[in-house]
Amino acid sequence: MVAVAILAAGRGTRMKSSLPKVLHPLGGRTLLERVLDSLQNLSVDHCLVVVGYGAEQVQQAMAAYPHLTFVEQRQQLGTGHAAQQVLPYLENYEGDLLVLNGDVPLLRPETLNQLITTHQQQGNAATLLTAQLPNPKGYGRVFCDGSNRVTQIVEDRDCSTAQKQNQRINAGVYCFRWPVLAEVLPKLQTNNDQQEYYLTDTVLLMQPVMAVDVEDYQEILGINDRLQLANAHGVLQQRVKEQWMRLGVTLIDPDSITIDDQVQIHPDAVIEPQTHLRGISTIGAGCRIGPGTLIENSTIHDQTTVLYSVVTDSTVGAGSRVGPYSHLRGEVTVGDRCRIGNFVELKATTVGDRTNVAHLTYLGNATVGAHVNVGAGTITANYDGYQKHPTVIGDRTKTGSNSVLVAPLTIGTDVTIAAGSVITQDVPSDSLAIARAQQTVKPGWRPKQLPPQA
Amino acid sequence: MVAVAILAAGRGTRMKSSLPKVLHPLGGRTLLERVLDSLQNLSVDHCLVVVGYGAEQVQQAMAAYPHLTFVEQRQQLGTGHAAQQVLPYLENYEGDLLVLNGDVPLLRPETLNQLITTHQQQGNAATLLTAQLPNPKGYGRVFCDGSNRVTQIVEDRDCSTAQKQNQRINAGVYCFRWPVLAEVLPKLQTNNDQQEYYLTDTVLLMQPVMAVDVEDYQEILGINDRLQLANAHGVLQQRVKEQWMRLGVTLIDPDSITIDDQVQIHPDAVIEPQTHLRGISTIGAGCRIGPGTLIENSTIHDQTTVLYSVVTDSTVGAGSRVGPYSHLRGEVTVGDRCRIGNFVELKATTVGDRTNVAHLTYLGNATVGAHVNVGAGTITANYDGYQKHPTVIGDRTKTGSNSVLVAPLTIGTDVTIAAGSVITQDVPSDSLAIARAQQTVKPGWRPKQLPPQA
Amino acid sequence: MVAVAILAAGRGTRMKSSLPKVLHPLGGRTLLERVLDSLQNLSVDHCLVVVGYGAEQVQQAMAAYPHLTFVEQRQQLGTGHAAQQVLPYLENYEGDLLVLNGDVPLLRPETLNQLITTHQQQGNAATLLTAQLPNPKGYGRVFCDGSNRVTQIVEDRDCSTAQKQNQRINAGVYCFRWPVLAEVLPKLQTNNDQQEYYLTDTVLLMQPVMAVDVEDYQEILGINDRLQLANAHGVLQQRVKEQWMRLGVTLIDPDSITIDDQVQIHPDAVIEPQTHLRGISTIGAGCRIGPGTLIENSTIHDQTTVLYSVVTDSTVGAGSRVGPYSHLRGEVTVGDRCRIGNFVELKATTVGDRTNVAHLTYLGNATVGAHVNVGAGTITANYDGYQKHPTVIGDRTKTGSNSVLVAPLTIGTDVTIAAGSVITQDVPSDSLAIARAQQTVKPGWRPKQLPPQA
Repeated sequence: MVAVAILAAGRGTRMKSSLPKVLHPLGGRTLLERVLDSLQNLSVDHCLVVVGYGAEQVQQAMAAYPHLTFVEQRQQLGTGHAAQQVLPYLENYEGDLLVLNGDVPLLRPETLNQLITTHQQQGNAATLLTAQLPNPKGYGRVFCDGSNRVTQIVEDRDCSTAQKQNQRINAGVYCFRWPVLAEVLPKLQTNNDQQEYYLTDTVLLMQPVMAVDVEDYQEILGINDRLQLANAHGVLQQRVKEQWMRLGVTLIDPDSITIDDQVQIHPDAVIEPQTHLRGISTIGAGCRIGPGTLIENSTIHDQTTVLYSVVTDSTVGAGSRVGPYSHLRGEVTVGDRCRIGNFVELKATTVGDRTNVAHLTYLGNATVGAHVNVGAGTITANYDGYQKHPTVIGDRTKTGSNSVLVAPLTIGTDVTIAAGSVITQDVPSDSLAIARAQQTVKPGWRPKQLPPQA
Repeated sequence: MVAVAILAAGRGTRMKSSLPKVLHPLGGRTLLERVLDSLQNLSVDHCLVVVGYGAEQVQQAMAAYPHLTFVEQRQQLGTGHAAQQVLPYLENYEGDLLVLNGDVPLLRPETLNQLITTHQQQGNAATLLTAQLPNPKGYGRVFCDGSNRVTQIVEDRDCSTAQKQNQRINAGVYCFRWPVLAEVLPKLQTNNDQQEYYLTDTVLLMQPVMAVDVEDYQEILGINDRLQLANAHGVLQQRVKEQWMRLGVTLIDPDSITIDDQVQIHPDAVIEPQTHLRGISTIGAGCRIGPGTLIENSTIHDQTTVLYSVVTDSTVGAGSRVGPYSHLRGEVTVGDRCRIGNFVELKATTVGDRTNVAHLTYLGNATVGAHVNVGAGTITANYDGYQKHPTVIGDRTKTGSNSVLVAPLTIGTDVTIAAGSVITQDVPSDSLAIARAQQTVKPGWRPKQLPPQA
Repeated sequence: MVAVAILAAGRGTRMKSSLPKVLHPLGGRTLLERVLDSLQNLSVDHCLVVVGYGAEQVQQAMAAYPHLTFVEQRQQLGTGHAAQQVLPYLENYEGDLLVLNGDVPLLRPETLNQLITTHQQQGNAATLLTAQLPNPKGYGRVFCDGSNRVTQIVEDRDCSTAQKQNQRINAGVYCFRWPVLAEVLPKLQTNNDQQEYYLTDTVLLMQPVMAVDVEDYQEILGINDRLQLANAHGVLQQRVKEQWMRLGVTLIDPDSITIDDQVQIHPDAVIEPQTHLRGISTIGAGCRIGPGTLIENSTIHDQTTVLYSVVTDSTVGAGSRVGPYSHLRGEVTVGDRCRIGNFVELKATTVGDRTNVAHLTYLGNATVGAHVNVGAGTITANYDGYQKHPTVIGDRTKTGSNSVLVAPLTIGTDVTIAAGSVITQDVPSDSLAIARAQQTVKPGWRPKQLPPQA
């Protein structure tokens, strides 16, 4: 059991944004949500979020996390000052406090587990997360004795040339024995360049203080501007994509693909370049997705191909072919072995097995049976300018090219709709419906723009 | 003249695939096909493929290579054991045997030529292909004297700290004098950690054995999982793209483009980002292809632009414009100086010179003349639900917007089809065909959803 | 005040192109235009371009730069020879001459300013731009004393092993005191391997000659083949993208995005992968553009999303949604809070606020009011095969699905067009227009391909 304080009060000036920094999205989740996700393996009994800039906005954005306590830091006077705000909320608390930053979103749950386990097993007053950076410039250096006991922490600007060689830096992530910290926090002073209260200064006032190195230094990278945001996106993507490749998914040109954390992909799926799998989506075994495809909050069953298409909030059955240039949205369900493609938009529509909707079609609020052939250019006129209405098409029915189905409308099974017909009344099963004029031909006719024939 | 044995019996467990490893595609060709391609400059008199896992599937997939002899290795007891299976097939063979791995697909033909030439000129009993790896960890190290005579081969795990500094590794590609190898193979033993027969062990039983370094170590990278497959794809793509850039093709953002081996591109073509050129395709001089375009098994003649489109199994003439959002498939032929685009699908269709099919059209099984204007929304109703039928449109004919051409249908030259017409009967040349109702207007009409006007 | 000579006479054989090298485009501007752009902060009183290969073509391509003087170099006998051609054009000129190469397009204006300022402040006879290259192989090395006075310039092939360690190279960019250079130029000789006149040789004949290092060595990279062209494109793109990220723009997967120099992007815009912003374009605050989108010479106002679409020469208002699969071109203006998408092409069309053109539509030369609903499959028949005609649609009007509007045509306000109608005559406000046949149904009808029902 630990308490957690997440420092999330900063504006993030260098983001140049109207959005508080910790609310910036990174691969489908905000920075702050990602920090909360890193706690998933811990038993947390208090979770305090120190908010300041855009406090209300941050609080609203976290409505889905009812267990959070928001602590307001009205002025931002440093990390030590932020920690001081927590004092009233943890009176008489006897456990440990994990301090995280709301703008450090890449920490793995395993890393925090290890930090806390080490802290508690060693009975430390404080344990610092440290990292060995290839280029430590700008970071405070942590000096330890041979057993990782912290002897000194020196800011980059105060380092001697020799000290600058030390690549071990302070990650800004701490586990404190709370009663010890609570006693020390009020003693912090602002006698430094920035005239701020530094949480780091508490470390010198307690002991023993030990350091634990993170294995992958990329975990401790913070986000201060959009360049770092883009870099963090790359780090997360590499993690996710390596995982899926190890599990038997072929990614062609992985760098051009993005995959959100909550996507599931089955083995022998092939993800082609420039494909984006987002939200809570599942890709079945043996599927081929892309190039140039966006799948969002959707399920694609086994052996289906989706080429240059957008599929959101929808389900596509097995062995189907979608695209190029299809758009499925708003709770579409497509059956098995269907063909959807070539400038086809489906919205809030169900399509039965082995049905083809192959060309230049818009179906909205429709329920289409199995073995149906929806002709090229078929359109459901589902919107009368005021309301949406349903269309039902029975099994084995065929609609002619450029036919319009004016909803509400029910068409039976085994119906044929003649090409170019506007169908406004229900059509019984086993019938032909037709609504068009006779063809007439005017021989020798010439466009008026042309001179008369000689 | 050499004999070749390709070791292709392994399952490739880390691929996590239902497909045998050597059948995984890499840029349009399977790993095994790529190994066979690397033999293209050699005179091969026996080509033996040692198969095991998925033997039948591998054999079927190689149906296009009738000169292959498949050798079954029922149990996979190591590379030496694989080589032993070849013994009955090369009785009394007096030449050299080149041993390759089915999962090492990046070897250049020049490299194999050099290996064999060196082997034969030096009269070696065996010649090993070696590589200088920047990070040799995990590979068996090859130790040689000053004249490249192999003195020792040590597995990574058996290397002393000093030996681990040796960056020269065994690439697993060998040229043997076959009668010498044939004598040695039966003597192999399994007294090692893995209890396998190692082909490497034969090397110690014959002499002289020499080493030849490959120039580019990337050639010897093997494929054991999908990460390595993606990496090999990157290596191949870099080779291909550098070649085309040197030959005068502009690639904008080369990393985002993929080009298959058998594609031809003429100078001064510009390939825009996120474009994929696949199969046996040709891009003419001065073309601009992409962004976001897939060309597969197709020919695009000079000075044509293709933007955000998919073109498969088709030919487009010179000076034409295709896209955005066109789909050409199934043996389409488009003439010179045509305009095809904006949600247009052509299937099994021929389009004459200077013809426009510019908007929201589906033409299937059609033969369209020259100087034709196919109106927006024109659709060939080529499928009656049972069969496909042809449509013929003569030169200089114009079809109106949203017209439907019900096949089989022949429309003459210089015909005008009125907008919104469904044409079901042939139309003679120089005529107007029309099939639509008169327009009527109901003034003061209000939708029933609205309150009556005040 | 300086004179400038840009050496632009070379063919660029390794480009393998019919285009003179300096006319190759790099991110929307030719190499030569980029060199001219690098002069933007200088006061230039003569700008001489030394042309040779394709002289006329180069001169024509630079028609927008009337202040240039073109100097012909008939034979290409080296950089010194090129400079000699300038002599007649600068007789009696008393100032400084800046010599640039037409194929070195990445120099920053600040770098040239610094070169000239140093030159003039130090009163040098010549000042060389030098660079510290990580891999200086192939470049002439510049040797200086402690105060940057040039003591020796040695070609790579003439360097001793020790000299090759010098990473300071000659960038080929010079500032000369012109009267000194003019005196020295006629003395150049061709007693070297290439039998060419080297401009470098002049440096040894005057003094003092000083060197100035460029801060970022990438600025001095020259373009000799398409690989270097692609590399330079990457360098420029990185500059531009870093700038926008620092200014508060989120780029998701920046490597997959291209942004031309003259694009403006407001803070909190999000640019999704595989998006290309070209020409003179502006993206408003809070917009989300992409994935897979091309914006060219267009303005997108605040809070608008554009998904998988192509927008050229157009303007889209605030809070609108475009795509997927829209194409706006030819001076389109879309109002605020509109929805344009799903296989919709707009050409030379104005769309009022809160109007929807949501599915499978082509509007050309149309003026559409506010609050209009353009039904799916609506097409303006704006082209009669000879001329384009206008269509006007009034506020709050609704066109039915698959309706055709035959231009020239004016439709009033609050009109309803029935689905499937071909409208050929003007429609007054507050009316219903309809042009279609009655629906008839033939019960028990079976396609002739089926056997009669039992």
